[in-house]
Amino acid sequence: MKKRDIFTPIGITVGFMMIMFGIVSSGGMGGFVGFIHGSSVLIVLGGLVAALLVNFNIKQIKTTKDVLQETFRRNDHDLAELITLFERLSERARREGLLALENELEEVEDPFIKKGVLLAIDGIEPEVINDIMNAEIDAMEDRHYRGRLIIEKAGEYAPAWGMIGTLIGLILMLQNLQDPETLGPSMAVSLITTFYGSVLANLVFLPMAGKLEEKTNEEVFIKQVIIEGVIGVQSGQNPRILNEKLSAFLSDKVKNKKEDVEELVEESFNEA
Amino acid sequence: MKKRDIFTPIGITVGFMMIMFGIVSSGGMGGFVGFIHGSSVLIVLGGLVAALLVNFNIKQIKTTKDVLQETFRRNDHDLAELITLFERLSERARREGLLALENELEEVEDPFIKKGVLLAIDGIEPEVINDIMNAEIDAMEDRHYRGRLIIEKAGEYAPAWGMIGTLIGLILMLQNLQDPETLGPSMAVSLITTFYGSVLANLVFLPMAGKLEEKTNEEVFIKQVIIEGVIGVQSGQNPRILNEKLSAFLSDKVKNKKEDVEELVEESFNEA
Amino acid sequence: MKKRDIFTPIGITVGFMMIMFGIVSSGGMGGFVGFIHGSSVLIVLGGLVAALLVNFNIKQIKTTKDVLQETFRRNDHDLAELITLFERLSERARREGLLALENELEEVEDPFIKKGVLLAIDGIEPEVINDIMNAEIDAMEDRHYRGRLIIEKAGEYAPAWGMIGTLIGLILMLQNLQDPETLGPSMAVSLITTFYGSVLANLVFLPMAGKLEEKTNEEVFIKQVIIEGVIGVQSGQNPRILNEKLSAFLSDKVKNKKEDVEELVEESFNEA
Amino acid sequence: MKKRDIFTPIGITVGFMMIMFGIVSSGGMGGFVGFIHGSSVLIVLGGLVAALLVNFNIKQIKTTKDVLQETFRRNDHDLAELITLFERLSERARREGLLALENELEEVEDPFIKKGVLLAIDGIEPEVINDIMNAEIDAMEDRHYRGRLIIEKAGEYAPAWGMIGTLIGLILMLQNLQDPETLGPSMAVSLITTFYGSVLANLVFLPMAGKLEEKTNEEVFIKQVIIEGVIGVQSGQNPRILNEKLSAFLSDKVKNKKEDVEELVEESFNEA
Amino acid sequence: MKKRDIFTPIGITVGFMMIMFGIVSSGGMGGFVGFIHGSSVLIVLGGLVAALLVNFNIKQIKTTKDVLQETFRRNDHDLAELITLFERLSERARREGLLALENELEEVEDPFIKKGVLLAIDGIEPEVINDIMNAEIDAMEDRHYRGRLIIEKAGEYAPAWGMIGTLIGLILMLQNLQDPETLGPSMAVSLITTFYGSVLANLVFLPMAGKLEEKTNEEVFIKQVIIEGVIGVQSGQNPRILNEKLSAFLSDKVKNKKEDVEELVEESFNEA
Repeated sequence: MKKRDIFTPIGITVGFMMIMFGIVSSGGMGGFVGFIHGSSVLIVLGGLVAALLVNFNIKQIKTTKDVLQETFRRNDHDLAELITLFERLSERARREGLLALENELEEVEDPFIKKGVLLAIDGIEPEVINDIMNAEIDAMEDRHYRGRLIIEKAGEYAPAWGMIGTLIGLILMLQNLQDPETLGPSMAVSLITTFYGSVLANLVFLPMAGKLEEKTNEEVFIKQVIIEGVIGVQSGQNPRILNEKLSAFLSDKVKNKKEDVEELVEESFNEA
Repeated sequence: MKKRDIFTPIGITVGFMMIMFGIVSSGGMGGFVGFIHGSSVLIVLGGLVAALLVNFNIKQIKTTKDVLQETFRRNDHDLAELITLFERLSERARREGLLALENELEEVEDPFIKKGVLLAIDGIEPEVINDIMNAEIDAMEDRHYRGRLIIEKAGEYAPAWGMIGTLIGLILMLQNLQDPETLGPSMAVSLITTFYGSVLANLVFLPMAGKLEEKTNEEVFIKQVIIEGVIGVQSGQNPRILNEKLSAFLSDKVKNKKEDVEELVEESFNEA
Repeated sequence: MKKRDIFTPIGITVGFMMIMFGIVSSGGMGGFVGFIHGSSVLIVLGGLVAALLVNFNIKQIKTTKDVLQETFRRNDHDLAELITLFERLSERARREGLLALENELEEVEDPFIKKGVLLAIDGIEPEVINDIMNAEIDAMEDRHYRGRLIIEKAGEYAPAWGMIGTLIGLILMLQNLQDPETLGPSMAVSLITTFYGSVLANLVFLPMAGKLEEKTNEEVFIKQVIIEGVIGVQSGQNPRILNEKLSAFLSDKVKNKKEDVEELVEESFNEA
Repeated sequence: MKKRDIFTPIGITVGFMMIMFGIVSSGGMGGFVGFIHGSSVLIVLGGLVAALLVNFNIKQIKTTKDVLQETFRRNDHDLAELITLFERLSERARREGLLALENELEEVEDPFIKKGVLLAIDGIEPEVINDIMNAEIDAMEDRHYRGRLIIEKAGEYAPAWGMIGTLIGLILMLQNLQDPETLGPSMAVSLITTFYGSVLANLVFLPMAGKLEEKTNEEVFIKQVIIEGVIGVQSGQNPRILNEKLSAFLSDKVKNKKEDVEELVEESFNEA
Repeated sequence: MKKRDIFTPIGITVGFMMIMFGIVSSGGMGGFVGFIHGSSVLIVLGGLVAALLVNFNIKQIKTTKDVLQETFRRNDHDLAELITLFERLSERARREGLLALENELEEVEDPFIKKGVLLAIDGIEPEVINDIMNAEIDAMEDRHYRGRLIIEKAGEYAPAWGMIGTLIGLILMLQNLQDPETLGPSMAVSLITTFYGSVLANLVFLPMAGKLEEKTNEEVFIKQVIIEGVIGVQSGQNPRILNEKLSAFLSDKVKNKKEDVEELVEESFNEA
């Protein structure tokens, strides 16, 4: 269910284009050369990696690559498909009993749905299923938080090391003021690390950490729909009602989400 | 029930007038020209949008326009009308029973009131109604928070990209110090992005995020009055008492709100 | 029970005297003139007001005047008088029953005491009285918080607009560097808005918001004594014991408050 | 039980020695004179006091002296003595009953122990004693917090007023740039207030607020040992067991504290 | 179970190499000399120590050395070994009863496991064991927090004292502007303390505090596995099931941890 989240690369590309545009528009193509400075890149990235090596243990640092890639993926949960699935499960459970669902599970890929339905088949009580599955959501949130923390810390250390690089440049420059000709270019070079640090923080690390948080919130939302569905199936809810109940999460989600749910609650009350 | 909140455009206009005044008062009309700088606008806004594209998923970014427009609307809840409505509902419910309220509902537009009354008609217990409606309030607060977050983040990225623009300008300027004549104007241009970033943050994004929070708080307040009203109607409270009870929220709200409520509580105790 | 809190005007006066002293001591009386700059005042105050207009709705902005005045008032609760009152109420309640307190209430001005005693007369149970009155305290804290928020935000926007003013001045100055003579004075003028913003934040808005928080805490404290008193009266506590119990809040409050209370608790246990 | 905490004056002395060393090492004894600047002291301290006068009410400001002195005192709780006391109380209580403890109390100075034992003598139930004494701990924490707040706010206002002083100096200097000779010394003087503000915050106020927090935590710890002791005495615990149980808090506290406690728990289980 | 955490020294070494590289690449080996400045080291470290002496009491400061060393150690918990241990204990407990475990304990070094098993042998109820052991975890977290706090505060005071050193240098330099030749070198020296403070904070103290937090979280994780194991042993769980249950924590921990646990939960349900 994962697709590419093209807005992460688009955003980063747009950001770099803005920077390039800013440079070229007032400095010409020639000015651009002055912004590529190998040793400055090394200081900021090297210092950043050094700080992260001290800050995190090796197991977590190894996860960084996955965490970064995660910001380029979209969790495109097909809620409509999910609802159809639960409607089918609900129908079959009412006709043939909960045990009949075991066959249906073979086609289900999502491990979270699988577990939920297995718990339902085992006859675990709804509150217990709710507790177990919510505990899993909590664990996922905790795991995601620890991954995101590395990116957030990178967003803090990047500007700090940018400033350290600038201080090194300034101190060196001030120690050798004999030639006023070189003053400007030296200061320009000093500032480049601050520039790198700011761009890394405000275009890459902090926005990526933000997206990771967004994705976690979305994942939590979809998993809560699944819990709702599993419990609906187990309690033998009418497939049509279950469909409508879960559809409330689907249609016009942002605006009318809750309202629809409530209407359905009423309908189900009326039916009962 | 939504009107224009003219204080948002007034505030922004006043802010821009202050800036113009500040420029013209010491720089004359000529100075004003120097503050309009297309490529600086592009860097700050472009960088800001780039960071938001990385930070949020596309579904949320699409809501930005609505969220911004929301700051120009006033939720002018007519509490007096609301109270009259609940008084009428209460009277009819006592005379003809709760079921008779279904006809009244046709004239009610607010979906939150509608749902509350429908729940009351269905004979759901007061505590359950309270729980369901409060859950809806929680969901609304959460939804509003996620919309507001985009504006808040914009208020963080705007000054950061202002600084990135200034760094670009400074580095370019320092690389070419040959002509001392151009030093001043170059630095002036560099600072313009910082200026744009500060104004965007402190006149537009941060105050707008503040207003959105205020509006959410108000909405919560009005919805709690509605809950109070619905439960009053269902429990067959005397229409006059209900009117007075809800009026307490209305008159001199800021200062005496709670006190009045308490007095009414006592009255109702005495009556009982 | 409100008197003037002379320390707010004294503090602000001392602060301005320090500033004046700082200016005159190194710049002479002449230097003082340079610090009064009409258009700078306008930019900082105007920008501040503009940001607040966007940030708050009109109802809240209207409360600003009251909120500011509140920092010049002292809540001089006469705890001794309060204790005498509750002792008298307790005596009468034991002699003539709770209903007899209704006559006493005519002399009581504080609406919070009035309500508490009325609830006691109505025979509401102590836990319920405690809940109702604590709910009122919560509502008061919330109301005070919203008023204080405007002052706190003003303390955030003031330095921000000071910086915006300085940026305007710097940009204008840098655009016209022909005459090195005017460089100094121009920069001096630019910095004045930053100076205004800092003084407004660190002498006026932030300390005032601090005092408002202090006052809210005090108000909560006194209201909790009242709750204690009301419940003591209703439960027919011995007037002497109630006096001593409440006196514990009075004498040497800061240091021995709780200790004394505990001693009294023991005494009352011994008596029982 | 209070002794002088010599590390507070030592720390402050070391800090000032470092500053003096820094000045003399590069500026000679002559440079030192330039750092003593009466009117700068007045601006920073005066502005700080002004802000605190607006921020706090007079009752709290009066406590500042005590609060500051508190950072020079060490709470040297003699845990060994405390344990011997509770062992003795426990023995006597088992031999002669709880009432016999009243004579022992004459020698006890600590009001918290006294109260605890009195509650035990009065036959209050352990859970209630626990609640009452913990409520007292909460009240102490709250009281300490309010005292510490003044020092923390001083640590915020000091650098702010240092900056205000520097702005005053800079503006005055820039208004009179005729004589380039005086430029350096004028700027030097301007920076002195920023220097004062930073030293006050980072050597005096913020570290002192930190120590006050530490002391509060320690006080809470010792009071919890006392609660443990009181409840042990009341429940007629074996004096040897109680001694060992409380000793666990004593020996190698930082490292093995909890572990030992657990071992004793097991012993007591075995005994039982 | 503690090994060296080589990534802490590697990180610090990499950081210093980056700094050296940055200096040498633009300043040559000669520039390097200018960055070693004895009195600047003294001001920053001395001021830092001074602030910590005021901020913490002597008992805590004594723990600093241990706390720092802790960042160079790796808690290499051998989960596989832990699981084998609990499997063996579980088997023996089922065959010979819980009392037989006492002999096994002689080989166990970890005091936390020992205590847990002793509690199980004593027949304490599972919920109580859970409470006691979780209380120990809480105490450990609290103890670790207080140790970490010193490092965190060092990370705050280091840049502050760097700035104080720079202010001293700037003020001295500005007081003696006669010789423009020395202007550059003097400013270079002033900036060195800021440089030291930034490096100490962003390469040493803040990342170390981060690692200490990571280690605490890991320790909590492993201790929770132990609690799970102890309770499994006591409740006479099937050794194979217990093995699989605990293995879930082991394999592919980061990604599949919870999922596996759930699968095992189901298996155990099916078995039952």
